[in-house]
Order: sequence, then structure tokens, then C-alpha cells
Amino acid sequence: MNFRMVNYVLGWIFIFEAIFMAVPLITSAVYAEGQAALWFAVTAAVCVVIGFLLICVKKPQNKRLYPREGYVIVALSWIVLSVFGALPFVLSGEIPSFVDALFETVSGFTTTGASILNDVEILPKSMLMWRSFTHWVGGMGVLVFIMAFLPLSGGQNMHIMKAESPGPSVSKLVPRVKTTALLLYSIYFVLTLIEFILLLCGGMTCFEAVNTAFATAGTGGFGIYNSSIGNFSPYIQIVVTVFMLLFSVNFNSYFLLISRKFREAFNTEVMVFFIIVATAIAVLTFDNISLYSETGDALRHSAFTVSSIISTTGFSTVDFNQWSELSRTVLVLLMFVGACAGSTGGGIKVSRLIILFKSFAKELRIMVHPKQIKKIKIDSHPVEHETARSVSVFIVAYLVVYVLSLIVISFDNHDLITNFTAVSASINNIGPGLELVGPTANFSFFSVTSKIVLIFDMLAGRLEIFPMLLLFTPSTWKK
Amino acid sequence: MNFRMVNYVLGWIFIFEAIFMAVPLITSAVYAEGQAALWFAVTAAVCVVIGFLLICVKKPQNKRLYPREGYVIVALSWIVLSVFGALPFVLSGEIPSFVDALFETVSGFTTTGASILNDVEILPKSMLMWRSFTHWVGGMGVLVFIMAFLPLSGGQNMHIMKAESPGPSVSKLVPRVKTTALLLYSIYFVLTLIEFILLLCGGMTCFEAVNTAFATAGTGGFGIYNSSIGNFSPYIQIVVTVFMLLFSVNFNSYFLLISRKFREAFNTEVMVFFIIVATAIAVLTFDNISLYSETGDALRHSAFTVSSIISTTGFSTVDFNQWSELSRTVLVLLMFVGACAGSTGGGIKVSRLIILFKSFAKELRIMVHPKQIKKIKIDSHPVEHETARSVSVFIVAYLVVYVLSLIVISFDNHDLITNFTAVSASINNIGPGLELVGPTANFSFFSVTSKIVLIFDMLAGRLEIFPMLLLFTPSTWKK
Repeated sequence: MNFRMVNYVLGWIFIFEAIFMAVPLITSAVYAEGQAALWFAVTAAVCVVIGFLLICVKKPQNKRLYPREGYVIVALSWIVLSVFGALPFVLSGEIPSFVDALFETVSGFTTTGASILNDVEILPKSMLMWRSFTHWVGGMGVLVFIMAFLPLSGGQNMHIMKAESPGPSVSKLVPRVKTTALLLYSIYFVLTLIEFILLLCGGMTCFEAVNTAFATAGTGGFGIYNSSIGNFSPYIQIVVTVFMLLFSVNFNSYFLLISRKFREAFNTEVMVFFIIVATAIAVLTFDNISLYSETGDALRHSAFTVSSIISTTGFSTVDFNQWSELSRTVLVLLMFVGACAGSTGGGIKVSRLIILFKSFAKELRIMVHPKQIKKIKIDSHPVEHETARSVSVFIVAYLVVYVLSLIVISFDNHDLITNFTAVSASINNIGPGLELVGPTANFSFFSVTSKIVLIFDMLAGRLEIFPMLLLFTPSTWKK
Repeated sequence: MNFRMVNYVLGWIFIFEAIFMAVPLITSAVYAEGQAALWFAVTAAVCVVIGFLLICVKKPQNKRLYPREGYVIVALSWIVLSVFGALPFVLSGEIPSFVDALFETVSGFTTTGASILNDVEILPKSMLMWRSFTHWVGGMGVLVFIMAFLPLSGGQNMHIMKAESPGPSVSKLVPRVKTTALLLYSIYFVLTLIEFILLLCGGMTCFEAVNTAFATAGTGGFGIYNSSIGNFSPYIQIVVTVFMLLFSVNFNSYFLLISRKFREAFNTEVMVFFIIVATAIAVLTFDNISLYSETGDALRHSAFTVSSIISTTGFSTVDFNQWSELSRTVLVLLMFVGACAGSTGGGIKVSRLIILFKSFAKELRIMVHPKQIKKIKIDSHPVEHETARSVSVFIVAYLVVYVLSLIVISFDNHDLITNFTAVSASINNIGPGLELVGPTANFSFFSVTSKIVLIFDMLAGRLEIFPMLLLFTPSTWKK
């Protein structure tokens, strides 16, 4: 383990955390929130000091990074970001319990959007802005961000990017990792900007539009009102629906679109994703038609909810916990599907499911004709055995974390559906679940132990399990 | 596909179905149930005629069997057994709906024990005996039974045995398949006999003892009273608890015990199984202590319920649906664990979970040290890559069937826990679930479509998914 290199990158994480806090600081200046500004400034100052110490005191001689350093750097970075990102909430007294504040911040960075706050509307605007901004930073990935600026040599930072990016395999858009990172963030920024402008056109205030755009872009889901997106106009709800879906698509597709490679842009994963979305919307609209006075309303709320869940955003326009059991079942299943690989969304990812299904069909064929062994193909590219195996391993790891979490939180003795969907909503980075953690409720009632488990799940889900597990594997830490 | 050979084995299945019906026929003679006897006799006669036609008309020239013939034979045999086994219920009018009767019979042969009957006590004794006897036949496997007697040459009937026996890999106790099958059935018969005698000693009538022993041995769970085992004495409940666990152990272990290989008999799978059982009993006893006046009662009911669920029997002494959410969660998780491979129990099987955990730990090590590739070991034997992969594939296939079933039955619009545990209880061959399918309830309220799905799930679960899926794979049927 190259500890100096780990320290070095973590040092930069502290510096960037301080830079990120400029956003709530500016907000507090605009809205004259002196109290909040103070605590953001204090935290930022502490981060800058620690950051400089880590970067300058022991400069790494050997800049080599192996996969395990990649995993460790990513896991520790996210923990550091969350722990220090929680400080302003605690210091200001807005969220007095540290575990609660950590829950809220992890929920922000991992773009989960699950809250422990009973009433978000009493928070200072700068705190609300910080919550939304963590979504935006966490959505595309903080290390991808740093990669675009950090002076790291060679292709070895690919290990970091691989460990942070969602999906079964990461492909670079262009040969250089740094340029890839810059391109991804440019697309991300432009899409966010377009949504912001469309929201402004729909009558949102600038503050509302920035927050909503950040939370949509990261597929996060923190709302600035207790009613989430419920009290906004149908136009706003439709804009958010469209953008939740757009941010669920693999960003490679946008790069391909810009490069005028239209056929490649609409690849199998994207098509399957939209087929699932369309089918789910159709089922839910049909199922909910009697609940709303107009078919248009049923369609709008169904489309919004389906997009919110499959994109793992977690916004809501209605209390879908009150919907029929059929609709609830469909939503629970969508929780696990998740978005496309290489998007800002969470979940298992559509491409993993496609690989699983194809591997499975292949195994059936092998049973019938044992000598016929062919690689499976997606978009007429063969899928490497390594990738196919890593998908199976991911599913197993995912189930292990899932089941262990479920056991621990069931000691709180809440009902099965609450426990089941609380873990699902955390590990898939969605936010709301059903029953006690439904869209009109929050996670405050869980015990401290359960909250810590769910914090772990959110991080494990966002980083796709392995970086978090490797932190607890002794051999990771050998020299 | 060697169709003649498939026909030939199916012919024998019909003959054996007729032979099996001797058991209810004798029962109806003893209890003078002329009406029931008639319909069993008619069905048996039909089976004999069809059987002889299939065996004698087109004798197979080529007796070669490939794996796919093994799967197809097993799947079709179980369907034939169930369809014709259901006829006496329908013809006698005891269960007028054919789908209901098929559900009950499949539930019997697959040792699920889920019932569509609101009141089992009004059934004639011969019908009750038939239900219990299907458990006994299905537990060890009907083809394993036939293998012990059928004149099939060579080692090729191993493909049939492999397709019917539960667990990730099948090992022959002795070189000859025929002798292995005989040995397995002898152990099975002796254990059943011992339980029968112990039950008689506890004051059960002969009829009660036979039925209970059959249903325990097959880890089936059909009761002959509406209260299942609830109204019997603590002694009886303890005997059943012990035997449910004994029948959950790999039968190879008993063979090893007889061969005085004690160390091999208590292998990793058996030890892990008993550790899980002990832990679950401890948690449930502790959790239920306030519900019962004496700690002994809490222990007895917890031990009974844990053994019933993990062995996938499904007997009950209390309505565990009323237990706390913690206990219910533990029970739901045990549903998936299931028994040991090579036992009469269902579920995913302990050995599969051990292989999954070990593969998973190996993957974590590979991430840290990519060049270190070693096979995982169980009981100091290396696990072949092929076996490890087949376990992952099994889990995926299992999840695919599970999720699709859940979607279809959720159209009935019952609550999520009912749907979730109904599918779990069917695919894992347990019987009762929670809520509407709890231990005091039954499956009669489901729609015909849902019942057909659950019938498929019970068969898929008992035959470990692939034989049933291959029936619907076009390439299986090519010449």
C-alpha cells in the first residue's frame, strides 16, 4: 500500500472540500446568513490546513497506483468528504447529532436523498444549498472532478476513476483520463445549466431552480420543501421528469451524440432502459387511473414517480406509498434496476442486468449443447469473461451487504416493508422507500446503529460495494 | 433429443405412479372409503395402460442419454406425476377445480406443503394419506427411486440423478448409480421408520404417525389437522423438530457415519447448518420470551419454527405470523437458506451459500493482489471453477424466476409481504409464508394465473430451476 500517495490524494480532497464550501458561503452572503457563513468558513479553513499538511509534509516519491490504492483512495475520500461536510450542520446546531448530520451528508454526496430532517423548510438557505450541491458533486464523482485538475501523471489514475465510476466497465471517451474527466464534467455542467434555465422559465425562483437542478443532475432528490416537487406546476414536474431520465443515461451516449455517432449513442443499454421506463409508466398509469380525476394527471404522476425511482433520484409529487400493491411492487423492483452505467444514477444498473440475462441464456444453451461455448455479445461487441464474472460477483457482494444490513436494522423492530425498502432505498441511493420511510416520511426514527448501517449502505451503493468492503479486508493494508 | 428414451422413462413413471397409489388404496380399504378407492383405482388403471403403451410400443434402440435428456426426463416426469396424481382429488369431487388439485399435488410431490384447502380435516383418510405419501416420494426423488429398480444400463442414468438431486454437485456414494440410489432409499426408509415408532410411543395413532413421518421425512409439511402439529404434546413436537433437522442433513453424512468416517460426516456444510440453526433459535427464543409463560415454551416453539422453516418443511405449532418483526425477518431469511445439499429439504442450500461466500472472499483478495489466483476450498477439497460458476448461475436463474413470479402475482393486488413470502415459500418448497399465507391460512384466495405461477415455482424450486426452464428453451427440442 502506497500510503504517501493515499495521503497526497486525500490532501487534495480536503482542499476541494474547502473549495466546494464556497457555494454555501456565497449563498449565505446573498441571504445574509452570518451564523451559517461562520461555520462554513471555519470548516473550510480546517480543511485547507489539513489539506496542505497532507500534501506538503510527506511528498510521495513513488507515484505508482495499483488497483487496491484506487479502491482505498476512493473509499477514504468519500468518508472524509462526508465527515467534514457534516461539520457545518453540527457546529451550527441545525442538526445537533453528529450521526444524523453524517447521515444527511452521506445521503447528499451519495445522491441518495434520504433525510433525517422532519422539516427541511426551517433550514437556512445556505444549508439547503450545501445539501443540494453535495448531490451535484457526488453525482458525477468527486474524484472524477479532481482528476480533471489534479497533476497526476500517466494512466494510473485510471484505477481511481474505475473505482469511483458506476457500472460494470469503464471506457475512456478519449485516450487521456484527464480529458475524459473534463469532457464528462462539461456535459454534466451544460445539461444542469439547461435544466436550470428551463426551471427559471417555469416560474421558479433562482434559488429554487439552482437547488432543483443540482438535485436532479446528481439524481439525488433532496428537496427544499417538505412536499418535494409536489407543489410546483405540472410544467416544472414535466421538466424534472425529463431531466431525471436524461441524467440516468450513460454520459458516453451524449459524447457519441456530439460526435455524430447516432447509432452507437442509442445502444442496447439505453434502449432497454427506455423500454423498462415506458412499460412501468404504462402499468402504473393504468393502475392509478381511478385515483386521479384526469388521465393526464395519472400519467404525469406515474411518469414522474417511475423516473424518480429508476433514476434513483427520489423526488416525489404524490405519496406513492398510498398507491396499490401492484404499483408498489413495480416501484420496489425498479429500485433495484437503477439507471444506466456511467450515469449519475445508482442501483444495480441496466447494463449489469443485460449481462446477467445474457449470461443466463448462454448457460441454458450450454446445458443443452455442452460443447458450444461462445462469448455473449452486447451491441455486437463480445463481453469479456472477466466482465461477466465481475457482474456475478457484484450481485453476490450486493446481496451479502443487503442481507446483513436487513438483519441489523430489523433489531429496531419496525415492519418488514419499512426495513426492506429502507435498505433498498439506501443501497440503491434512491431516498424514499415505503411505509415508515415513504415519500412523506423520513429516516429520523431509526436507532443510531441502524443509521450507521444505512450510512455504510449508501456509501457501499454509490461506490459499488467493493471499495467500502476492501477497507475492512486486512490484506488491503499490508505494505 | 432421444425422444424414444424419454418416452420409455416416462412410461415407467406412469407404472410407478400406479404402484404409489397402492398406499392410498390400502388406506381406503382399512377405513372402508369405497368412493375414494374407486377413483384411485381408476387413475391407477389409466396410468398402467398409458405406461405399458409408452414402454412397449416404441422400444428405444439407442439408450444413450445426454444431459439435456436428463433435464427433460426429470421435468416431464414430475409434471406427469403431478397431473395424474391430482386426478383422484378432481374425480372424487374433493377438490373440484383441476388447477387447485394440481396445486395441492405439486405442493405434495415438491414437498412444499402449501395447501389450497380451507379445512383438511374433512378429506377422506385415503386422500390425506396420498397427500402425505407424495411428500415421501418427492422428498428423496421419484427418479432416484426408479433408478434403484429400472433396468437402465451404464453410468448414463447419472444425468437423470444429477438433474433431480438437490445441491451444487452430486457425488455417488458407491461407484454404481443403482446401488447409490438403493442405499439412499434405505437410509431414508430407516430414518422414517424410527420417527414413526417414536411418534407411536408419544401416543399418536398409527394413521397420524404414518402421515406425520411421511411429511417430516420429505420435509413436506402437509398436516392432517388444521392446527398442523399445534395440538400434539410437547414430546411429539420435539420428536418432529429433531427429525425435521435430521432430514435436512446431506444423506451422504449418514452413509459416512455408517462407514465409521466420523470426521467426514461432520463436514463444513453440516456444521454451518447447525450453527445457523442454533443462532436463529437463540435469537427467536430471546425475542419471544415475553410471549410465553415459560421459557421452555418459547424455546420449544422457536426451535420447532426455525427447524420447520430452514428444513423447508412448513409445519407449525404456533402462528408465527404474529411474532415480532425481528423474528419474522429472521424466518424470511431462513426461507432462502434452506437445508443441506443432498437432503430432502429445499431452498438455496447451505453448501451453495458457503461457495458463494468463499468465492466472494476470494474476489476481494484478488482485487488486492490481482496475481494471486487460487481455487477456493471446502473441507480441504478444491471447488472446481465449474461448480463455483454453476452456483452463481443458479442464483441468477433463481432471482429471474423469483422476480418474474412476483410481478405476475402482484397483479392480484394483495399486500407486498403476502406476495413476497408466497413466492419465497413456493420456490423454496416451504409451504406457509406470512400475512395472508401465514401458517393458519392457505393459498386458496389466489387467482388461477397466480396459482399456475406458484405451481411452476414449486416445481422449479424442487428441481433447482434449470430442468423447468429448459422445457421452454427451443433448442432443447432439436433432434
